[in-house]
Amino acid sequence: MIQFDHTTARTFIADHELEAMEPQVAAAAKLLDSRSGPGSDFLGWLDLPLKYDRAEFKRIKAAAKKIRRQSEVLVVIGIGGSYLGAKAAVEFCKPTPPLPIRGGRKKHFDLVFAGNSLSASYHSQVLEAIGDRDFSVNVISKSGTTTEPAVAFRLFRQKLEEKYGKTGARERIYATTDKSRGALKTLATQEGYESFVVPDDVGGRYSVLTAVGLLPIAAAGIDIDALMRGAADAVKQYKKPVKENDCYRYAAVRNALHRKGKDMELLVNYEPRCHYIAEWWKQLFGESEGKDGKGIFPASVDFTTDLHSMGQYIQDGRRMLFETVLEIEKPESDFNLFKTGDDLDGLNYLAGKSLDYINKKAAEGTRMAHTDGGVPNLVVRIPEATPYYLGQLFFFFEKACAISGYLSGVNPFDQPGVEAYKKNMFALLGKK
Amino acid sequence: MIQFDHTTARTFIADHELEAMEPQVAAAAKLLDSRSGPGSDFLGWLDLPLKYDRAEFKRIKAAAKKIRRQSEVLVVIGIGGSYLGAKAAVEFCKPTPPLPIRGGRKKHFDLVFAGNSLSASYHSQVLEAIGDRDFSVNVISKSGTTTEPAVAFRLFRQKLEEKYGKTGARERIYATTDKSRGALKTLATQEGYESFVVPDDVGGRYSVLTAVGLLPIAAAGIDIDALMRGAADAVKQYKKPVKENDCYRYAAVRNALHRKGKDMELLVNYEPRCHYIAEWWKQLFGESEGKDGKGIFPASVDFTTDLHSMGQYIQDGRRMLFETVLEIEKPESDFNLFKTGDDLDGLNYLAGKSLDYINKKAAEGTRMAHTDGGVPNLVVRIPEATPYYLGQLFFFFEKACAISGYLSGVNPFDQPGVEAYKKNMFALLGKK
Repeated sequence: MIQFDHTTARTFIADHELEAMEPQVAAAAKLLDSRSGPGSDFLGWLDLPLKYDRAEFKRIKAAAKKIRRQSEVLVVIGIGGSYLGAKAAVEFCKPTPPLPIRGGRKKHFDLVFAGNSLSASYHSQVLEAIGDRDFSVNVISKSGTTTEPAVAFRLFRQKLEEKYGKTGARERIYATTDKSRGALKTLATQEGYESFVVPDDVGGRYSVLTAVGLLPIAAAGIDIDALMRGAADAVKQYKKPVKENDCYRYAAVRNALHRKGKDMELLVNYEPRCHYIAEWWKQLFGESEGKDGKGIFPASVDFTTDLHSMGQYIQDGRRMLFETVLEIEKPESDFNLFKTGDDLDGLNYLAGKSLDYINKKAAEGTRMAHTDGGVPNLVVRIPEATPYYLGQLFFFFEKACAISGYLSGVNPFDQPGVEAYKKNMFALLGKK
Repeated sequence: MIQFDHTTARTFIADHELEAMEPQVAAAAKLLDSRSGPGSDFLGWLDLPLKYDRAEFKRIKAAAKKIRRQSEVLVVIGIGGSYLGAKAAVEFCKPTPPLPIRGGRKKHFDLVFAGNSLSASYHSQVLEAIGDRDFSVNVISKSGTTTEPAVAFRLFRQKLEEKYGKTGARERIYATTDKSRGALKTLATQEGYESFVVPDDVGGRYSVLTAVGLLPIAAAGIDIDALMRGAADAVKQYKKPVKENDCYRYAAVRNALHRKGKDMELLVNYEPRCHYIAEWWKQLFGESEGKDGKGIFPASVDFTTDLHSMGQYIQDGRRMLFETVLEIEKPESDFNLFKTGDDLDGLNYLAGKSLDYINKKAAEGTRMAHTDGGVPNLVVRIPEATPYYLGQLFFFFEKACAISGYLSGVNPFDQPGVEAYKKNMFALLGKK
């Protein structure tokens, strides 16, 4: 299992402080388990990894195969929770190469996200890069009327119809939407698109283990059986009593730190593949807790890269920070440093050591330095960057976030503030 | 010229407050201009766009051409200030396509950054993606002993020597380093690498307009003459008196907001091409101001994408935020929305409107909503995403940062906190 470790933060938070949190955590867990807290209409994610729709799951895997057979590119249209989970999973399990692999006879399958901004330049680039390749579209929207994905879907649907005709296009459009209502559902039924369900009781930021996340993740060639197995094991693990429950402890520790002035949490990683895990995590926690004038501000850094940019601030700036570090124990690949004759760069002392070993010593040294500098460090240990452990990680954060929101005294499942900019935008655009 | 506008923040900061800042700003500007403030040994960037070494500049352009002739890939090895400026410029002027362009007979030139982390998986991916393509290396390090780039340079130098022999490798290695001392300079002289200079009086985070940034930017096919022209125009523009000086006003406004509890600044954009401008900006401000237990915390969001993740927090969470929005006035490309027969998605009211128009209305609506929500909004208007305006933007932020640091009472040009993790890491690695 993944593990949560707060031992290095013990100079900031004594055991008696954590003990004092236990009744509150138990109360929050009771609210959640009895489905009696605020937002309890949106708790479908809580047992989803055990109770998901097996028939739909099978259809998702079949659709993923079909997409890879029929196309070289899958355009995934979605924003917010309809984008971040899949993006996080794909980059974690099968990171995009830092530069394109070219040449060779291997056929490439590329997955690209669209409708996640209103940038004309971005969408032009996507169209240009697709070129004359065969492509399919997975459009993900509960309502079908969210501006960004709706605009993008008009665009890509038109391109599909131009290229394959109305009938051909229908074979290449996969709609993930409400089970019975809404604009996209109506269109999907009318046109006969293969459809998947955004459940009513799972909010966007909790939707990665529904069809919302699963279809693009499977289409990317990632083992979604293993992903769900990991999540299911996490469901069982994090039902344990407060004292043995890593997930509850994470929620307790971050709130205890917040109550003594640590107002910002940095999710830290030492592997670029974790970058979008942090983006997903920022939505999860920011949208769940950032309301009623409160909330820990979630931010993120990629180390050691950002030790050379944000490192100075973290070490020595305002002391309102704490860090939660994602550590991947076993690297996907590794290589050893070797000696050079002159040793001009002074690295010969590292000969025979592996790059991953050095990376881990950097992490350890940083944890010590930041702790000394007044920044409490928490650690989430992930044995390996596999779909199985990712399933655990997703559920760990989801449940911790719910408990944490109840500890903070908010409804962790609504997002009333998201409407404010939309209202203004619609007025400015002259929508009736 | 680019423009700074704080009018929408006037409900948070009255004119008399800004007037009260003027003598302080004038004092900071005097410290800077008279080169008598803390860190004044590092003011080489201040007149660099006017006084840069023309002969070296010519060599940079020639080397960029040579690299594109001899190779299909340039590996740029550097971290922190030796990475972020070039990355920001390349993504702003020539954004990487969201998915690779494949097929066609066009020869591709790819630029990739390495030595900016200690990830073994990342560096394996770079090597694999280079495959059997011809490649060159630009290694950027003042000392040549910074662990990340030094490790990567050992690796890529070995690959070059295996592929091209020692002599061939020398023709493909470009070193940007100290003019006379240090490990990399010694090696470059010994091996006869073409070398460029990291000036003594320009710190890493201020180095984008030196060879550090210019060689990779030019190699990417970006007009560095226009970049420098923009920066030179900014040098002149931001010498104006306090009352007419956008750059000073930005420094004044952010400090005035900070003094009334706005402890975090979010750099906001509505175009993905600006993402790495924010990363560069975070190093610039975070490393310059985050010390002595103080500093505005610099963070960033990409809109409208992150309105669907961090939007809730910004609208309705803790009220310690202000936003600085980068707006690009003229889009690189654009297209109009069209009608559909059924109008199921309800977007027909947008028919005939362009995507960029909608994006700008989203920006306007967001500015109003966040302002109403208690988040002051500042705007930097950029006429177009060109190298010329980017040159202005770089210098605008550089000088504003220096002034802002002096207003805050720190040395904006040192970074004492960056050493702490390194010391621990070296001890853990057994370095003597």
